[in-house]
Amino acid sequence: MSTSEIAARESAAPAAHGAFEAEADIVVVGGGGGGLPAALFSRWLGNDVILLEKAPELGGTAAKAAFWYWVPNNAAMRALGKEDREEDFLRYVARVSRPAAYDPSSPTFGLTEWEHAACRAIYESASPATELLHEKGALPYRHVDAAPDYWSELPEDAAPTGRVLVHTEARESMSDGGRNSIRTMAAKAREDGVDIRVSHRVQRVVMDGGAVTGVEAATPDAAAHRIGARKAVIFASGGFTHDADLRRNFLGVPAFGGCAALTNEGDFVRISGRVGAQLRNMAHAWLCPIPLERAVARRPDMSGMFSVAGDSMIFADKHGRRVVNEKLQYNELAQAFFVWDADAAEYPNLVLFQVWDQRSQDGSASDEYGRLIAPPGADDAHVVRGETLDDLAAGLRERLARYATVTGGLALADDFTANLRATIERFNGFARVGVDEDFGRGERPVQLLFNGDVAEQPGGTNPTMWPIAEHGPYYAALVTGGTLDTKGGPKTDTEGRVLDDLDAPIPGLYGVGNCVASVSGASYWAGGATLGPIIAFAYRAARASDRETARAPADADASRLSGVS
Amino acid sequence: MSTSEIAARESAAPAAHGAFEAEADIVVVGGGGGGLPAALFSRWLGNDVILLEKAPELGGTAAKAAFWYWVPNNAAMRALGKEDREEDFLRYVARVSRPAAYDPSSPTFGLTEWEHAACRAIYESASPATELLHEKGALPYRHVDAAPDYWSELPEDAAPTGRVLVHTEARESMSDGGRNSIRTMAAKAREDGVDIRVSHRVQRVVMDGGAVTGVEAATPDAAAHRIGARKAVIFASGGFTHDADLRRNFLGVPAFGGCAALTNEGDFVRISGRVGAQLRNMAHAWLCPIPLERAVARRPDMSGMFSVAGDSMIFADKHGRRVVNEKLQYNELAQAFFVWDADAAEYPNLVLFQVWDQRSQDGSASDEYGRLIAPPGADDAHVVRGETLDDLAAGLRERLARYATVTGGLALADDFTANLRATIERFNGFARVGVDEDFGRGERPVQLLFNGDVAEQPGGTNPTMWPIAEHGPYYAALVTGGTLDTKGGPKTDTEGRVLDDLDAPIPGLYGVGNCVASVSGASYWAGGATLGPIIAFAYRAARASDRETARAPADADASRLSGVS
Repeated sequence: MSTSEIAARESAAPAAHGAFEAEADIVVVGGGGGGLPAALFSRWLGNDVILLEKAPELGGTAAKAAFWYWVPNNAAMRALGKEDREEDFLRYVARVSRPAAYDPSSPTFGLTEWEHAACRAIYESASPATELLHEKGALPYRHVDAAPDYWSELPEDAAPTGRVLVHTEARESMSDGGRNSIRTMAAKAREDGVDIRVSHRVQRVVMDGGAVTGVEAATPDAAAHRIGARKAVIFASGGFTHDADLRRNFLGVPAFGGCAALTNEGDFVRISGRVGAQLRNMAHAWLCPIPLERAVARRPDMSGMFSVAGDSMIFADKHGRRVVNEKLQYNELAQAFFVWDADAAEYPNLVLFQVWDQRSQDGSASDEYGRLIAPPGADDAHVVRGETLDDLAAGLRERLARYATVTGGLALADDFTANLRATIERFNGFARVGVDEDFGRGERPVQLLFNGDVAEQPGGTNPTMWPIAEHGPYYAALVTGGTLDTKGGPKTDTEGRVLDDLDAPIPGLYGVGNCVASVSGASYWAGGATLGPIIAFAYRAARASDRETARAPADADASRLSGVS
Repeated sequence: MSTSEIAARESAAPAAHGAFEAEADIVVVGGGGGGLPAALFSRWLGNDVILLEKAPELGGTAAKAAFWYWVPNNAAMRALGKEDREEDFLRYVARVSRPAAYDPSSPTFGLTEWEHAACRAIYESASPATELLHEKGALPYRHVDAAPDYWSELPEDAAPTGRVLVHTEARESMSDGGRNSIRTMAAKAREDGVDIRVSHRVQRVVMDGGAVTGVEAATPDAAAHRIGARKAVIFASGGFTHDADLRRNFLGVPAFGGCAALTNEGDFVRISGRVGAQLRNMAHAWLCPIPLERAVARRPDMSGMFSVAGDSMIFADKHGRRVVNEKLQYNELAQAFFVWDADAAEYPNLVLFQVWDQRSQDGSASDEYGRLIAPPGADDAHVVRGETLDDLAAGLRERLARYATVTGGLALADDFTANLRATIERFNGFARVGVDEDFGRGERPVQLLFNGDVAEQPGGTNPTMWPIAEHGPYYAALVTGGTLDTKGGPKTDTEGRVLDDLDAPIPGLYGVGNCVASVSGASYWAGGATLGPIIAFAYRAARASDRETARAPADADASRLSGVS
């Protein structure tokens, strides 16, 4: 996607009400995992719907995802007789999202009123929303009954498996769930009459006496388009992963970038800010490790590393030491890169080195889920290869030198190779007995979920570990921390209404997905804990906005069109 | 300060222009370490100035501080022939604030344009600003030539000592610098004709055609007061330490509260947000350890723990283990409480236990700088005492139980006492030789700066450590992480102008201090790196706003006063 395909950002100051070139009951901004469901739900309630997508094609970040969706008390669970009561669901999310405030004796489990209400809304609506999408053929699912929550072993998780759904046509590995989900939702939206307009970058809302009545968008030819919304505008325009200024000045950690759609530049942070919305949760993101070189290149096809493959494989730091359990789930693993060394005033793990041997190269290569062990014929420009560990270190030094200006001059320590040798020896000892005494690799169910394929392990007891070979070739790649997308934006109520500083809804303005504040705080409850709640809120926003009184169509006399700010 | 002394928060939506009950050239909001200098500088430029303070008295957070102010290339350094060139200053702050982006070969050292310009502004104006305050008798200083920067040992710090100034009348320990600074600045403001109005909570700004022309404030009797500003309004109203919702939903860490003035509730986040300001840096705070019990009680007199006293003293976690260098400078030490355990989904260090013996009780007791070793006669309700370590553990268990609902049910592990005994033995071994092999306690200059008094150390080589006694009594207190105040708010330019989403100033609206976004990111450069830059920006905001064209006085017909929204 070249920048010429998308109009440049202009002022987000709201425009005055007046004539529109087109009007609908509901205008949806964004055609990804939040916008398409919102548009479909609105349409099925009988509304005229216009959907505006900034990119030349639909899909957003969701198109790149496996598109698991995490649905508490879903129909498939109920059919299997798996119990998932509301209070059990709330207990788990409270325990994991707000551990410092978690209180089993409190009616809200220590959640604030806002958090509690939002989590109840997820519980209430995720299942009916996904059932409706399924029944309509927009998003037919199969149940991934065995997928565990990310802390399935906690006593507070009464339904440790069973909440995950995925597209029926997703391949066995599920990695193409997003492409399938976007394909069938977009097809259904077109079939059912949603007016989809791509390459429309919404710049601002149109206001009339404190209420949002439409938007102004720009196309790549710089033409301005005023689109009216008789009932409401629902933003689902994604987070701010690709705005370096917002990332640097809001996130609590120095994330390099991420695998969100490149169009996710925080547009709604600015647009909603200009109409008095409260922002919340701007410090947090859905985190994942990312390959440093692809992130620096801003490759649109970059995937986050949702599954770090290989058993005879470790992450080493610049001193050649292991510093983390490489099989932690991605949101947790990413945090290892952001550890702060208060004495040295540096992030010592900002870049780590995934190191593997020929066994993992042969047994664990894959181009799915952001894995870095490239199969034959795949792009392996990120891979450094060495016949010996000394060769490998030389290759890494050369590679790191190219990135000095974006890593604070990170270089390997002089003792890297010697330490790496000792680290491998220690790891191999753990691998032989299947117990990682340093980091507990492979001990939790979620770590097995993302282990990926490994070569045969005769007599093995821990599928995440196997001794690294004593002889080369060895392989390595540079890894850092990034985002899937960010989690901050305007605060909304349980119906997706955007709230002002006194928690009053801004009339006509709704938001769902990563463009609004996530109630999950810093936490990543389970696979699909992004899209399950997003679909639930899309459903609720569609229903609430449907109930808004439609204003009369604005005067459509084109001669009265005001210029864009 | 009871809540009845301060009006309740109302809508921050801007009010329309109209008659004012009083007008001045410049209206300053906040009478603390940012507002008093801003008012003085404005007044000395010949402006009529009204200063509105929310609390019944002036001082804000600064009144509680030592009020060091960090001034690069200050006059006292120059008089001593100590060189502190702009590029050296910029190199240090870039290296420490943005280590992942630091690039010695870049003209901005890897800072963004905004960051670079702001840091240059600090360098340029901190010294003239403080000289002017000194010459006028508002803030007479003495030079604390020996105080090191917080990473004085880094090769990028070309002026490792000499940048700190403090009030001439501050006592030897300097802990009362804030009271003295507020006292003399307030006296000077009154003497020079600043119109000071306390117990005025500013609720919103008044706007006229996109420009800020005044404010509306409420007094405790709920009366509304419209105060006009012919040139500008300068906010200096502090951060959001005492708004639980903002703290919980913006900070990157689960900070419990902090020692900012209780009036610091993020008013300017809401007020500026409603007029289209961009927020920035909302994840970060000036951090410090705080005593858990006083924080939970929201004691207005609580001090952050700027100096953790005692040599025969350690911090232990719930397992009885040391997890941090207890003598780290406060902003860095506080981060230890927020370490995330990704496997257990908890903050294992959220509360740590400062443990000391009779030696430290006798040799290191003090009620200054938030030290927890209470001198005879001082409030020691936070201290748990035990004749043996078992007694001490029993006391801690009892104490912790009172706070279960705010700590996620934190309790001591069963092996606490056994581990604590082993921990003390190991620490004592380190103390005997003066080398902390685990955490490097006492190795850096800044750790000696904050060590406080210790009993005589015959033959000692490391003044931060001494063996803990084999026999009781022992003492302990509960410590967690908190803030001095927060660092996020609207983005401003180098003259303190508040910026909209396209970086254009909002006419007539200025901000300085902790109510606006700090350019320091997560970093704490040195003692006084709060107030030095704040005074510099107060000076620049006063000069820039002085140059604004004064609008004609508004019609003062009181009958036209609009009601407060």
